[in-house]
Amino acid sequence: MRIPEDIVFHTLTAFHEWFADQNRKNDYRVTVTPLDALDGWGTDAETGTLRHNSGKFFSVEGIAVDTDNGASWSQPIINQPEIGILGIAVKRVGYSYYCLMQAKMEPGNINLIQLSPTVQATRSNYTRVHRGNAVPYLEHFVSPAPGSVVFDSLQSEQGSWFLGKRNRNMIVEVPDWLPLRDNFCWLSLEQLTELIRIPNLINMDSRTVFSGLPFLDHGHRAAEADMPEPSGPARHPLGALLSWFTDAKARHRLARRSVPLRNLPEWTYSPGRIYRPDGRHFTVIGVDVQAGNREVAHWAQPMLQPVGQGVIAFLGRHFDDQFHILVHARTEAGTADVVEMGPTVACIPASYHDAPHANQPLFLDVVQQSEPADRLVDVVHSEEGGRFYQAENRYLVIDAGDSVPQEVPADYCWMTVAQLTGFVRFGNHVNVAARCLLSCMDDDIAEKTVAAR
Amino acid sequence: MRIPEDIVFHTLTAFHEWFADQNRKNDYRVTVTPLDALDGWGTDAETGTLRHNSGKFFSVEGIAVDTDNGASWSQPIINQPEIGILGIAVKRVGYSYYCLMQAKMEPGNINLIQLSPTVQATRSNYTRVHRGNAVPYLEHFVSPAPGSVVFDSLQSEQGSWFLGKRNRNMIVEVPDWLPLRDNFCWLSLEQLTELIRIPNLINMDSRTVFSGLPFLDHGHRAAEADMPEPSGPARHPLGALLSWFTDAKARHRLARRSVPLRNLPEWTYSPGRIYRPDGRHFTVIGVDVQAGNREVAHWAQPMLQPVGQGVIAFLGRHFDDQFHILVHARTEAGTADVVEMGPTVACIPASYHDAPHANQPLFLDVVQQSEPADRLVDVVHSEEGGRFYQAENRYLVIDAGDSVPQEVPADYCWMTVAQLTGFVRFGNHVNVAARCLLSCMDDDIAEKTVAAR
Repeated sequence: MRIPEDIVFHTLTAFHEWFADQNRKNDYRVTVTPLDALDGWGTDAETGTLRHNSGKFFSVEGIAVDTDNGASWSQPIINQPEIGILGIAVKRVGYSYYCLMQAKMEPGNINLIQLSPTVQATRSNYTRVHRGNAVPYLEHFVSPAPGSVVFDSLQSEQGSWFLGKRNRNMIVEVPDWLPLRDNFCWLSLEQLTELIRIPNLINMDSRTVFSGLPFLDHGHRAAEADMPEPSGPARHPLGALLSWFTDAKARHRLARRSVPLRNLPEWTYSPGRIYRPDGRHFTVIGVDVQAGNREVAHWAQPMLQPVGQGVIAFLGRHFDDQFHILVHARTEAGTADVVEMGPTVACIPASYHDAPHANQPLFLDVVQQSEPADRLVDVVHSEEGGRFYQAENRYLVIDAGDSVPQEVPADYCWMTVAQLTGFVRFGNHVNVAARCLLSCMDDDIAEKTVAAR
Repeated sequence: MRIPEDIVFHTLTAFHEWFADQNRKNDYRVTVTPLDALDGWGTDAETGTLRHNSGKFFSVEGIAVDTDNGASWSQPIINQPEIGILGIAVKRVGYSYYCLMQAKMEPGNINLIQLSPTVQATRSNYTRVHRGNAVPYLEHFVSPAPGSVVFDSLQSEQGSWFLGKRNRNMIVEVPDWLPLRDNFCWLSLEQLTELIRIPNLINMDSRTVFSGLPFLDHGHRAAEADMPEPSGPARHPLGALLSWFTDAKARHRLARRSVPLRNLPEWTYSPGRIYRPDGRHFTVIGVDVQAGNREVAHWAQPMLQPVGQGVIAFLGRHFDDQFHILVHARTEAGTADVVEMGPTVACIPASYHDAPHANQPLFLDVVQQSEPADRLVDVVHSEEGGRFYQAENRYLVIDAGDSVPQEVPADYCWMTVAQLTGFVRFGNHVNVAARCLLSCMDDDIAEKTVAAR
């Protein structure tokens, strides 16, 4: 099958030139602004909750969390209950697939412009689609052709920062090349596999949707078994993994209640920003966004700025020559159903720099002491630039060998990459950090690590 | 392998004799009692909420529900957020399995005594297990031996009557026959397949756990695909089913808020009971339970009594010689996450007896006009006798042929029995009515219906 000229990039150099052009065309300027000076935003007199004057978009509220393991805390959290769509259109050419990606500005992005999915649509976009549609390509996701949907599930976002936020992650196969609009391009899976190794280029919304790419082939095998089969023996069968997850949900407790944002213990609520004097976790700041030469493009909003670069890591080791990753049943303030499957380690080390060893996140030391040669994945990416300001995480997959024990605490479980991927499909199982980490893993990472031994 | 004498019933007649003995030993008497005369229960002065004076057990509260499709209503609902365990121990003998069942009294049961799972434990039982254990056999479920868990998932209960109630459904394989306590017996799967055709014998807690029996064999095939494979081509691959379910969750809205039980529109709150003057849905009544000759066994509690026998039915038809059932993405007042997969029809017809045709539940007429010969399953069972008073449903699976169209409304989807069963394993997908209906279906129902054509 021939690919029409000028539709795809024949080299990555050509892509980088195109992307540099997109950057040059960008005329947005983002300025950090005091919360009390944000255009269109106000503060609830009693609670201090930050809200847009229209009642739309999202709010920043106070929440108190109580868990069964003695941990109780209060924090600001973003409340945005509406379900949006993150969708990527793919075009098959023989045995290859191309994804339709957008070069898109978000105020919190490192580099401002990053590659985002074909569509990022809010529910308001979604439901008014009949009355004319401001979001290009949305129709392919709202009314997909029968048989065209490859992946379609509700997935949570950052539970430490969002209260129960989730988006509908979709991959839809389109029969024809869609006409390319400004800022859009087609990239092959092979090209994306290269590009995802570049720091801060592929945005979080793309990475979470990419975690559904393993299901691309499955759509064409309707009558066969529908769970990906592990390429070798797994330490635990699916039934045991489900039982481990069920047990964690039944054993733990996550209670939360609204509390005034204004009076959170350990947080300072100043007119300009909301922060922790001890320098931990994150700060709520304001930003003002302006386009240099376009009159319509101006807005202001609160954002969360983490206090330092985070670490999101899977520790792995081999069982019977099969590479396994250590999955953590993790509770966060905004987790919808008590726990989700997360990476072995997910934290901002700066939040713990003066904590005694016993209070450090479990396995963080193994990550920090790992050898470069054992890091199968090691790349810095940023989180959603529409809500988080320059929130960078270092994504790591480490072949830790005997540095991590075979027998692990009850909230941890060894799985193959294929097993964890299988859970992604069902939604509400795998958290956003783990999904984004899965997206950074080559298909052949398991084979590579076996070969290396 | 030899089965020790006196451990199992060699005929069903022997079982029925044993069960009749259990009934004769039963000395409980249940008396319907006005709500304001219930020992140990009180009423919140402001809202009218019914609560036990200890704060334990459950409460009956008022709830207002608002959905996107124009339906808004208020109703009483049972609030009991704690996760209990419903567990069945199974013993393998060659290629056969035996289940450890209990003859157990519940005040709402038709016949008072029914067959219940090995264990029905509340979270309080569950968490104080270290300090001595009043629930026999509980240790096999709280600390199952590695590799012994066949099925273990969190499952919702009646969303029309319970606010977000769920239980942990477990099947655990034990290596040895467990010593038989009073009121317990071992029954083979073949015997249970016969007994589930008898009205009001096997209780709801057993039936929901039985929906996990198809996973019995899978525990022994760790490295193989873990989803049950359809025995023939399915109309839709798993990806399309997941997309249908995701779309229903994203499309619908379920908002609810607490309202005073005392002032629910269309409900009468009298000192003795809470009911609808129009005779629809259910009544909140009180019962007093007394053992004739045992001093400890006395308690009182509120219960929900439906206004008539319900209908829970799957309509089915063949596609490519494969039997499919019509699954409904259904919202109920207490549904945890907007919709769950339910039967084609689930309602109390008496609630609609004078409603115009347009307001009748969809497909109820097809069920009511079905020919006896097309009813593959047709048996009356009762719902949980600890909360619901003589709540009977007629469970039906109907081979409806062309009486039901191939193309169905967006909230309905055709699946094979194996496909729906696959979702049971993941929890929070298939509602209790559909799970109980699956349990009534023989393994070979699909083959039977193909052979009949």
